[in-house]
Amino acid sequence: MADRNDDHTVFIGSKPFMNYVTGVVMQFTTQGANEVVIKSRGKFISRAVDVAEVAAKRFLEGNVVIRDIKVDSEEFENKEGRKVRVSSIEITLGKK
Amino acid sequence: MADRNDDHTVFIGSKPFMNYVTGVVMQFTTQGANEVVIKSRGKFISRAVDVAEVAAKRFLEGNVVIRDIKVDSEEFENKEGRKVRVSSIEITLGKK
Repeated sequence: MADRNDDHTVFIGSKPFMNYVTGVVMQFTTQGANEVVIKSRGKFISRAVDVAEVAAKRFLEGNVVIRDIKVDSEEFENKEGRKVRVSSIEITLGKK
Repeated sequence: MADRNDDHTVFIGSKPFMNYVTGVVMQFTTQGANEVVIKSRGKFISRAVDVAEVAAKRFLEGNVVIRDIKVDSEEFENKEGRKVRVSSIEITLGKK
């Protein structure tokens, strides 16, 4: 987990929306990233798409595009012993 | 909007989760679809991913895979005249 890409990953959670957008934009503009991976799980998946779209189409328009999108899910048992499946997404933004 | 694919599109909204999963599975099993496109917008994007994952990995395991994922967004003015960007997703499931 120490390869170059991990330095340019943004995990989306419940912080204010613009924190994440700024985080992504700064990776490209001040951290020299060529690619930034936006990751999230469960209900935050919608938000990850919002962050990617706002970063790519408003703040970095013309310079950055969505290169790849992967979804996955894992099943585990919750406290009541019921099987629960939680989805996840990884959106890769890259410099044009 | 009348090409073959539109017959095999499932729009994800606020109905019970399993309605959508069943809808997707039935397209493959009883409607003879080779591809089904799952579409949603805004906060329902997370749900679209859940539906795709549950359909592909539980109900149609080994037979259907996620072939393509596209995201997009459109900006419009809300009632207060503020610009709002709404994201959307299209997940294409296809027979192996």
